[in-house]
Amino acid sequence: MKHLIDIESLSVDEINQIYNRALEFEKGHRKANHINSNIVNMFFENSTRTKMSFEMAENKINAKKYDFCADASSLNKGEDMFDTINNLSAIGMNVFVIRHNDDNLVKELSQKVYFQDAAFVNAGSGIYSHPTQALLDYYTIKRHFLDVKDKTITIVGDIAHSRVASSNIALLKKIGAKIRCLAPEYLTGDKVEGVEYYTDLNSAFENTDIIMALRIQKERIQEHINIDEYIKNYQITKENLPYAAFLMHPGPVNKDIEIRSDVLELQNAKTILNQAKNGVFIRMAVLDMVLNSMGL
Amino acid sequence: MKHLIDIESLSVDEINQIYNRALEFEKGHRKANHINSNIVNMFFENSTRTKMSFEMAENKINAKKYDFCADASSLNKGEDMFDTINNLSAIGMNVFVIRHNDDNLVKELSQKVYFQDAAFVNAGSGIYSHPTQALLDYYTIKRHFLDVKDKTITIVGDIAHSRVASSNIALLKKIGAKIRCLAPEYLTGDKVEGVEYYTDLNSAFENTDIIMALRIQKERIQEHINIDEYIKNYQITKENLPYAAFLMHPGPVNKDIEIRSDVLELQNAKTILNQAKNGVFIRMAVLDMVLNSMGL
Amino acid sequence: MKHLIDIESLSVDEINQIYNRALEFEKGHRKANHINSNIVNMFFENSTRTKMSFEMAENKINAKKYDFCADASSLNKGEDMFDTINNLSAIGMNVFVIRHNDDNLVKELSQKVYFQDAAFVNAGSGIYSHPTQALLDYYTIKRHFLDVKDKTITIVGDIAHSRVASSNIALLKKIGAKIRCLAPEYLTGDKVEGVEYYTDLNSAFENTDIIMALRIQKERIQEHINIDEYIKNYQITKENLPYAAFLMHPGPVNKDIEIRSDVLELQNAKTILNQAKNGVFIRMAVLDMVLNSMGL
Repeated sequence: MKHLIDIESLSVDEINQIYNRALEFEKGHRKANHINSNIVNMFFENSTRTKMSFEMAENKINAKKYDFCADASSLNKGEDMFDTINNLSAIGMNVFVIRHNDDNLVKELSQKVYFQDAAFVNAGSGIYSHPTQALLDYYTIKRHFLDVKDKTITIVGDIAHSRVASSNIALLKKIGAKIRCLAPEYLTGDKVEGVEYYTDLNSAFENTDIIMALRIQKERIQEHINIDEYIKNYQITKENLPYAAFLMHPGPVNKDIEIRSDVLELQNAKTILNQAKNGVFIRMAVLDMVLNSMGL
Repeated sequence: MKHLIDIESLSVDEINQIYNRALEFEKGHRKANHINSNIVNMFFENSTRTKMSFEMAENKINAKKYDFCADASSLNKGEDMFDTINNLSAIGMNVFVIRHNDDNLVKELSQKVYFQDAAFVNAGSGIYSHPTQALLDYYTIKRHFLDVKDKTITIVGDIAHSRVASSNIALLKKIGAKIRCLAPEYLTGDKVEGVEYYTDLNSAFENTDIIMALRIQKERIQEHINIDEYIKNYQITKENLPYAAFLMHPGPVNKDIEIRSDVLELQNAKTILNQAKNGVFIRMAVLDMVLNSMGL
Repeated sequence: MKHLIDIESLSVDEINQIYNRALEFEKGHRKANHINSNIVNMFFENSTRTKMSFEMAENKINAKKYDFCADASSLNKGEDMFDTINNLSAIGMNVFVIRHNDDNLVKELSQKVYFQDAAFVNAGSGIYSHPTQALLDYYTIKRHFLDVKDKTITIVGDIAHSRVASSNIALLKKIGAKIRCLAPEYLTGDKVEGVEYYTDLNSAFENTDIIMALRIQKERIQEHINIDEYIKNYQITKENLPYAAFLMHPGPVNKDIEIRSDVLELQNAKTILNQAKNGVFIRMAVLDMVLNSMGL
C-alpha cells in the first residue's frame, strides 16, 4: 500500500492486512522503528481526536512528526498546495497525513508523478472519505465478533453529509456485511446499491447487531435539520436501543441529540472508547505499511 | 502522588519529597526515562514560561509530549472537556497538564472514576491555584536559605487576584514560615489566618528576608487599580528594598510598575531567573512522581 | 561561529566552513548527535518552508526542538522580547532561531552580555537579512559549478525590498562572483558598489550563468508595483531564459508573475527544488557549528 486515499481503492485483502497488522501492534507482537521517517500532519480542518490519534501512532512507530499549521503557513501568501507539498517533499518529508475539505485533493496529489517519493494518507476529506475511521470501526467490530460478514450494521443520522457513513458503507459492502441506513428522507442522500434504507427506527433496529450513530453537525442543525423532529424519531435512547446491540459513534457525541445522555452509561456504549483506542493501532498499521512500501 | 491538584492537597512530607527529587534532578543524581509515557499539555490560557518550562521538563524525563491546541480543537465543535479527556485517555495519553481559568476543573477531573488511568497536573488555574509556581518558589528559597521555617516572606501586590499569592501562602503556611502580605486594602482579599497584613511598605519590609512581588495584571489596571497611587506606595525601588532581601517575581515583570527597572540590575533580583531555572527541576520532579505512581 | 546574525558578519573562511560541513552532512560523512541541546524556533512572521526546513535540520542533528508560538505567548501580555529570551535561556534553551520583521533584533540580542549562554540564528529578518537562504543558494551554485568566482549571477525582481537579494549580494560579493541586478529603476534600491545594474532584460541575461528570480510580494503589487509592465518587461519566459542558465528562486513562486508557469517544467528550473533540499544541509551545518562553539 503506497497511499491511503479512500476505502474504494483498497482490496478486501489489503483491508485484512491492515486489520492483521493493527492486531499485531495491539498485542505487542510487532514493533516498528521508523526513526528516519518524517511524517507531516496537515490538518486544514479542526480535529482533536484524529490528529492526536495520528500523533500517538507516529510516536509509537518511532517516526519523526511535524505539524504543518495551516493558518501560520505560506498558504496565506497564495502558494498553492502542490507547490507546498513539492517543497516539503524536497526538504525530506516522507508521508503527508492530510485532512482537508476537498474530497479529491489526496487522490490528485497521489497521482502527480513528481511526488513519487511522497506518500499520502487521507485523514478525512470533504463529505465522502474518512478511511482510517472506517478501518478502525471495522477493526472494532471484527475484534469483537470475529466474523463481520453475517452481521447487520445500522447507520443512523445525517447519512447524506457524513464521510464516516460513506467510508463505512464502502468498507462493509466490500466485506459483505448487511448494511442498513436509518434517516429521514432528506438526510438519506444518494442510495447505494445493496444497502437497505429505513425511515422508521424500530424496523431498522430489529435484529441489528451494531448501531453506528453519526454525529449531527451543529452547524447544519439550524438551517438544514429539523432537530426536534430528528430527536423525536431518531435519537437513540435506553428504550429503543436493542439490548444486545453494540453502539458505535465516531465521537464527539452531541449528547441528547443523536444519543440520549444516559445511554452512554450502558455497557452497549463501551464500544465508543474502544473505537478511539483502536484508532491508534489502525493508524500505526497504515503508516507502517505505507513506510514499508517506500522502503523506509 | 497521583495528581497535582493544588497545594492544599499536599502534605508537608510530599512537598519535601518533591523538593528532594527536584534537587536530585538539579544535581544530576537522578535520571528519568519515561519513554513510554505520553503527556499532553493543554493550555487554555496564554503562557510562554510555564508551557515551555513543562515542555523542557517533559523532554528531560524523556516522556513523549503532545500539544493540545485549544483553539484548533474539537472543543470548538461543542465537545465538552470531560469527553475530550476521556477520548485522549483512551488514545493513550497518561498525564494531562492543564492551565485553565476554571479553578475546579483539575480537581473535578481527578475525581471521575472513569479517568482512573489518567493523571492531572494543574499548571495554573483561575485565581486560586498555581501549585508548581509555589513549589518552585519554595525550592528557590530553601535551596538558598536551607531552613524556610524561620524566614519572613513578604508578598506584595494584587494579593486578591493572584493564584501565585494564594498558592504560596498555602505552602508557606504548611511549612510554618512567617508570611506578610502588603497591599492597599482593596487588593488584599480575604484574610488568611496566621498571615500578617500590611498597608504600609516600610513596616512590611522591616526584617523581611524575602520579598515576593506579584505581577500586576495589565487588564486590571485601568478599571480596578489606581496605578499612580499603587506605584507611589507599593512599587519596589532601590530606596525601599532592604539591602539583604531576596527579590522574587513569578515573571514576566511589568517594569516600572510593580518593580522599578533599575532594581532588576541588583544582586537581589538575580533570584528571578533562578526561579525560572528551578521551575524545570520542580516540574521534572512532579511529573516523575506522578508517572511513578502510575507504574510508568 | 557563535551566532548567525547576517552574511556581513561572516568571513569567506567561515562561509566555506559552512559549505564544507553541509557537504559532509549531505554525503553522510558526518553525523551530529546534539541530544542535550534545546533549540527554540521563534517565527514572528509566517513561513512554511524555512520553519519546516529548520525543524527537519534540528531533528537530523538530534537536537530537541521547541515551538514558540508568537500569538499564543505572553508577548500578548506586554512582555518584551529581551525578558522572554532571558527567561527561556534560564529554562535551558540553548539556540534561538528567530524570524522577525525587525532587522536589528538578532544582532542586538547577540550583543547582550547576559545572554552569554544563548546563541542566535537569524531565520530571516526585515528587508535586509536572510543569511541561511544566501548560504543555501551559494551551496547550490557551488555544488554544481564548483567555482563560483568566475560565474555571472543575475538577480531579477524587487531588489529594493528583498532580504534574499541583499543577503545574496553580500555573500556573492565576498566570494568575488560577478553580480548583476535587473529591475525597473523604482525597484532597484540603493546601488551596491561592484554590482552591475540593468533595466533591460536581454542585456542582463547575456552570458549569465545563473538567474535568481525573486518572489514578488503580493501585498506590494497593488500599491507599489506596476504589475502589467513588470510582467511585460521582466517576467522570465521560455523565450528569454538563456538555454544553459540555472534558474533559481527562493520559493514560493508566484506563477505567471515573476516566472511564466511553463518555465518551471524546464530542466533549468530543477534547481529550485534543489535549493529546498540543500537548505536542510545548510541549516544542519549552521546549527551544528553554533552548538559546537558552545561546547554542546
